[in-house]
Amino acid sequence: MDAVACLFCSKNYPHDPFSPFCPDCGEPLLLVPLSGPCLKTIPTDRSHPLEKFSDFLPLRSFDASLSLGEGNTPLVPLGRLGPEIGIPKLFAKNEAQNPTSSFKDRGTAVAIQKAVTLSFKKIGTVSTGNMAASTAAYGARAGLKTYVLLKEGTSRMSLPAAGIFGPTLITVRGDYGRLFYRSLEIGKKLGIYFMNSIDPFRVEGYKVTGFEIFLQLGGRQAPRFVFVPVSSGGHLLGLMRAFEDLERAGLARGYPTFVGVQAEGCAPLVRAFGSGKLKYERLSEVRTIAHAISNPAPPAGNAVLKLIRDHAGILMSVSDDEMVAAQRALAAAEGLFCQPESAVTLAGLLKLREKRILPADGSSVLVLTGSGLKAPYALDSLPLKVRELDLDDLEQGLDDPA
Amino acid sequence: MDAVACLFCSKNYPHDPFSPFCPDCGEPLLLVPLSGPCLKTIPTDRSHPLEKFSDFLPLRSFDASLSLGEGNTPLVPLGRLGPEIGIPKLFAKNEAQNPTSSFKDRGTAVAIQKAVTLSFKKIGTVSTGNMAASTAAYGARAGLKTYVLLKEGTSRMSLPAAGIFGPTLITVRGDYGRLFYRSLEIGKKLGIYFMNSIDPFRVEGYKVTGFEIFLQLGGRQAPRFVFVPVSSGGHLLGLMRAFEDLERAGLARGYPTFVGVQAEGCAPLVRAFGSGKLKYERLSEVRTIAHAISNPAPPAGNAVLKLIRDHAGILMSVSDDEMVAAQRALAAAEGLFCQPESAVTLAGLLKLREKRILPADGSSVLVLTGSGLKAPYALDSLPLKVRELDLDDLEQGLDDPA
Repeated sequence: MDAVACLFCSKNYPHDPFSPFCPDCGEPLLLVPLSGPCLKTIPTDRSHPLEKFSDFLPLRSFDASLSLGEGNTPLVPLGRLGPEIGIPKLFAKNEAQNPTSSFKDRGTAVAIQKAVTLSFKKIGTVSTGNMAASTAAYGARAGLKTYVLLKEGTSRMSLPAAGIFGPTLITVRGDYGRLFYRSLEIGKKLGIYFMNSIDPFRVEGYKVTGFEIFLQLGGRQAPRFVFVPVSSGGHLLGLMRAFEDLERAGLARGYPTFVGVQAEGCAPLVRAFGSGKLKYERLSEVRTIAHAISNPAPPAGNAVLKLIRDHAGILMSVSDDEMVAAQRALAAAEGLFCQPESAVTLAGLLKLREKRILPADGSSVLVLTGSGLKAPYALDSLPLKVRELDLDDLEQGLDDPA
Repeated sequence: MDAVACLFCSKNYPHDPFSPFCPDCGEPLLLVPLSGPCLKTIPTDRSHPLEKFSDFLPLRSFDASLSLGEGNTPLVPLGRLGPEIGIPKLFAKNEAQNPTSSFKDRGTAVAIQKAVTLSFKKIGTVSTGNMAASTAAYGARAGLKTYVLLKEGTSRMSLPAAGIFGPTLITVRGDYGRLFYRSLEIGKKLGIYFMNSIDPFRVEGYKVTGFEIFLQLGGRQAPRFVFVPVSSGGHLLGLMRAFEDLERAGLARGYPTFVGVQAEGCAPLVRAFGSGKLKYERLSEVRTIAHAISNPAPPAGNAVLKLIRDHAGILMSVSDDEMVAAQRALAAAEGLFCQPESAVTLAGLLKLREKRILPADGSSVLVLTGSGLKAPYALDSLPLKVRELDLDDLEQGLDDPA
C-alpha cells in the first residue's frame, strides 16, 4: 500500500484513490518520498522513462502495454532568444511532443498504471481541455470505461480531441468547483477512479519531466531557473518534487528557483503570494484567453504557495498580450509552436530579466506544456500577410525584397 | 561533394540542390549509398538520431542547434487491434510526435543541415500543409528567410500552423504541378534552396524512421510488413532505402513487404501498379478528404513504382470511409489520434487481411504520419453524444449503464 502525506499537517495516510485531500485540512495529499540505498543512481540504459526512473516512482511494476510512448521529450536550446535576452543557456522542455500533445500524458501514464494495478474498470476526469484528451486516450488504450465531465456551456468545438477516443462525455450543470470534489465522492460509491488534476499519482508522473531536464543538462547541476505555467498547481508541484528527490538522493547540485506563471486575468496564487498570504482566495471572475490555465480555485494552490515559499521560488503573472507575443517569438525565432498558455513561461522570463531579477549565468528552462495546434483561437489575431502572384511573375516577385 | 544517382538510368551526378531530377529521364535523383567498413554497426549510445545513424547519412557533421528534437518517436504495440485482426505483432510508428506533429520534420531536419552547410540564406517549399509548417519551423530556427508557395485558393484556415513561424507566404495563380518545377528553376537563379517533397536530403531523413523501427523491433529481423501512406512518394522511398541500407550492411535479416497506400479518390500509382505499367498517368481530378496525400502527379511516383516492383511490394488504395473508420478505430481502441491520411495504413492492412494476403506471423508496422489535430475537418462527421446532467443528478447518471 502506498503512503501519502499532507504537506501542511505532516501526517501520513494509506493511499486512497478517492480521497486525494487531507482529512484534517483539505489540502492535497502527496506520495511519501521513497528512501533507501536504491536512490543513489539514475540508470540510463532503459528506454521508457517510467522504467528508467522507477527508483523515484511509486510503481511496483511497469506495464508497457498501457503506455503511448510518453516522455523522452526534447530539451531544445533557445540559441536565438537566449543570447538576445542575455541568458545564453536558455532551454525549452517541449512537452507538446507527448502522445496527446500536452504534459498531461506524463501524469495520466502513471495514474493509468495504478488504475490497472488496483483493478479499476472505470476511470474519469473533470476537464474540458488537455486533461480530457489525455485521460480519454489512455483510458481507451487500457480498455477502461472513461468518463469526461464537462463544464456547462463547454463549446462543442473543443470536444472532438477527447471525443475521438470514445469516452462518455457528460456536461454537468452546476458549480464547476464543487464538481471536482463531488466527482471523487461519486467515484468512491461507483468504483470510478477520477484521476483529476491533483491526483497524487498524476503529480508523480510530472516528476519525470524534472528528472529528464536534469539528465539532459548533464546530470550534475540543477538548472538555475525553471519556468512553469500554473493552473491547478499539480504540474509545478511535481516538477518541484523531482528536484527535491534529486537533492535528497545527493544526485543534483543546487535546487532551481521555480517560477510559477499565471495569466493576469486569473492569478489567484500570484495575488496571495504578493500579499504574503499563506492561502489564496478563490476568484469570482476570470478574464483571459489562456483557458488551459484559468482555474479560479486551484486545488493545489495552497500547496504551491507553501512549496514556493519553502524553496524561495517566485509566482508571477503576465498579460494576454505578453503571452501571445511570447508565443509568436518562440515560433518565429526558435521554430517552436506552443499553446499561448505555455508561452507565459517566456513572457515571465522576459519580465524578470527586465527587472534584473534573472541572472545571466546558469541555465534557465521554460517548460512548454502543450502544442499550439490545440489553441487555434489564439491565432485568430495573427497578422498573416499573404502575397498573390501569377506563376509567370513568380521569379520577379521572389527577387523583390518586399 | 555528395553524389546522387538516377534509379532508372543508373548514372551518378554531383549533387545540385536546384536539380533533384535526372537530366536524362526526369526521375528523381537519390543519394548514392555510402559504403565501406563503417557501415557494420549502429551505435546506440548517442541520443540524437542524426548522430546515431550518421554512418548511413550524407552529413559530414551535425549541427545540433538546427534541430528541434525530431525523431526518437515511439513504436507503439497495438495490443487490442492486433489480436482482434489476427496480427499479434502489430505496431504503430507514431511520427505525429515530431516537433511540428508530422513525419516531414525528419526530412526537413536533414535538408536544413545541408542548407546551412551550403551557406544558403534562403530556403523554400511548395506546400499548403505539413511540409509548409515543417519547413517554416526549421527555417525560423536556422534564421533563414523562408518562402512558402501556396496553391491558389488555399484556405486561410490552413495557414496559421505555418504562418506562426513567420515565413513569406505567397499564393501562386497557375498550374500547381508546374509550380513545383518552376520553383527549382527560380531557386537556382535567386539562391533559394527549395526543399520540396522529393529533395534527396529530405528522402535521406525519412530513412532514419526505418532505422528506428528496426532497432525498436530488436535490431535483428526486419518487420514482415510496413504500411505507409503515399503522396509525393518521397517518404516511402526513404523508408524502403533504409532497409536496403540495413540489408547491404548485413545488419538486418529479411526485407519488409512495403505497402504503399493511397486514397481511392487520388490513386495514380495504384492504377499504374494494377495495370502493370512502369509509369503512372497524371490524374485530372482528385476526390478525397485526404488532402495531405492527394497529389495527382507525384514527383517520385515512377521511382516508387520501380522500387515496389523490385522489392515485391504492394500499392493499394482505400476509400475515405475506410480511412475515417480506421482513424476512429486507432483512437478508440489504442489511444492514438492520427490524421485520416495516416489511418489509410490500418485501412489498407484490414483489406489485405480480409483477402488473406497478410500472414499472421511476423511483425507489421503502420507508419502514422501526422497528428489528428492537423485535420479538424475530418472530425466534423464524428458522432459525439454528449449527455447533460445536473450536478445533483450526477451520481444516478453515472450509475446508469446507458
